[in-house]
Amino acid sequence: MQIRGVKLTRVREDGEHEDEDFVAVEEPLHIRVCVDECETFAVIMRTPGDDEALSLGFLYSEGAINQFDDVRKVRKLGENEIEVWLRRRLDFKSRDLIVNSSCGVCGRTFLYIISALKSDVSVSREVIFSLPEKLRESQKAFSITGGLHAAALFSLKGELIYLFEDVGRHNAVDKAVGRLLMDKRIPLNEGILQVSGRLGYEIVVKGIRAGIPIICGISAPTSLAIDLAEEAGVTLIGFLRGRSFNVYSHKERVK
Amino acid sequence: MQIRGVKLTRVREDGEHEDEDFVAVEEPLHIRVCVDECETFAVIMRTPGDDEALSLGFLYSEGAINQFDDVRKVRKLGENEIEVWLRRRLDFKSRDLIVNSSCGVCGRTFLYIISALKSDVSVSREVIFSLPEKLRESQKAFSITGGLHAAALFSLKGELIYLFEDVGRHNAVDKAVGRLLMDKRIPLNEGILQVSGRLGYEIVVKGIRAGIPIICGISAPTSLAIDLAEEAGVTLIGFLRGRSFNVYSHKERVK
Repeated sequence: MQIRGVKLTRVREDGEHEDEDFVAVEEPLHIRVCVDECETFAVIMRTPGDDEALSLGFLYSEGAINQFDDVRKVRKLGENEIEVWLRRRLDFKSRDLIVNSSCGVCGRTFLYIISALKSDVSVSREVIFSLPEKLRESQKAFSITGGLHAAALFSLKGELIYLFEDVGRHNAVDKAVGRLLMDKRIPLNEGILQVSGRLGYEIVVKGIRAGIPIICGISAPTSLAIDLAEEAGVTLIGFLRGRSFNVYSHKERVK
Repeated sequence: MQIRGVKLTRVREDGEHEDEDFVAVEEPLHIRVCVDECETFAVIMRTPGDDEALSLGFLYSEGAINQFDDVRKVRKLGENEIEVWLRRRLDFKSRDLIVNSSCGVCGRTFLYIISALKSDVSVSREVIFSLPEKLRESQKAFSITGGLHAAALFSLKGELIYLFEDVGRHNAVDKAVGRLLMDKRIPLNEGILQVSGRLGYEIVVKGIRAGIPIICGISAPTSLAIDLAEEAGVTLIGFLRGRSFNVYSHKERVK
């Protein structure tokens, strides 16, 4: 399943209404590499489908295999687990991998106990409408290159707290969270995280871990981002453009 | 430096001209975590600037620190290396990290010996102009969700070989490369890789490793993507939209 139906609230200047729409499915794939026995090679977030090609392409890109003949068989176990059996032992072990930041699936993230945010703050529709324009005004390098993502933290009144830019959307969020940490402002119970692109799992995990109750993006959320936001008590807002947006979870904070 | 000037060739229907523009800078940051001694925690691709906030935000998101007080000091060594000294040993070791796919910086990628592609193929301007429309026509799930990236392989005549969609742009490329591998078509000396978004380092590395001489995206390339494409003999094309595009390296293949 590449897409899934979700319920949402469409907020426009002249009102709001409940509706349904489709979002891209995002789920973890546990890739295990096996010779005599199996070990975890990676857990990656992906849209289900073509998991065999994905696993082999990933192993190839990582230098773990060099041709299809290195692979003895590929075995799918359930929906989100796959074993790749190799003819010989990898000289490249999973534990030697160097990790990339644009991730958020790395390591412990999976183990977080998502304790629901108990923040009863609220925010006005007008403040939400104003965020993209404020982001753009403050985003200097993007307007020159067209190539930088931004993450900004705003107060509930829409005042800019910090803005960071980076080629990696996740890095921009990490910079914002790092700054919060340095300023001892975590959890940011009374803040809004606004990102310039899509809302995937990793962005929402980083926001939750920083205790931010409202997360907004100008583009589409994934299925997993919605599920996670729902469970964690976060208000997730997508397609925030012009003077309209969609609320995918905990809309009670939007007044 | 968040941006850098580059030379490029702007190709339009009525001709082409040499020009200069700015691109977002992308460089690796080597994050080392230290208690009594230092060890590599991660190497991440990022836009330089706010490296201290980035490192701390990343460590926090990964669960390696829980508050700023866990940090004794942060030491920048040169432009692309940083040490984070902690008060106590991590119970979370870098080698336990599970790696995400959306990466390409992971592991060996850095160690590839980039041997320049010796492909003397060429492609017509008209074929390149036609790719985005072909991608859109074939991309079913995107039009419904607005949330999926695509990667497609085309022949030099512009015929679609494969198309894959995923929430992660890198996954879509891994799926395409995995499929090539399964079909024993690597290196794809006579092919074009077309992606739906930006051209970062990781996308270009995956394309090079699959031996693809021409890589196109509808949005901006990063500085590192350009450097790498130049060195590897790859023709890198960005901002491919409407009937225009920019060539950032090896334009001799575009006729």
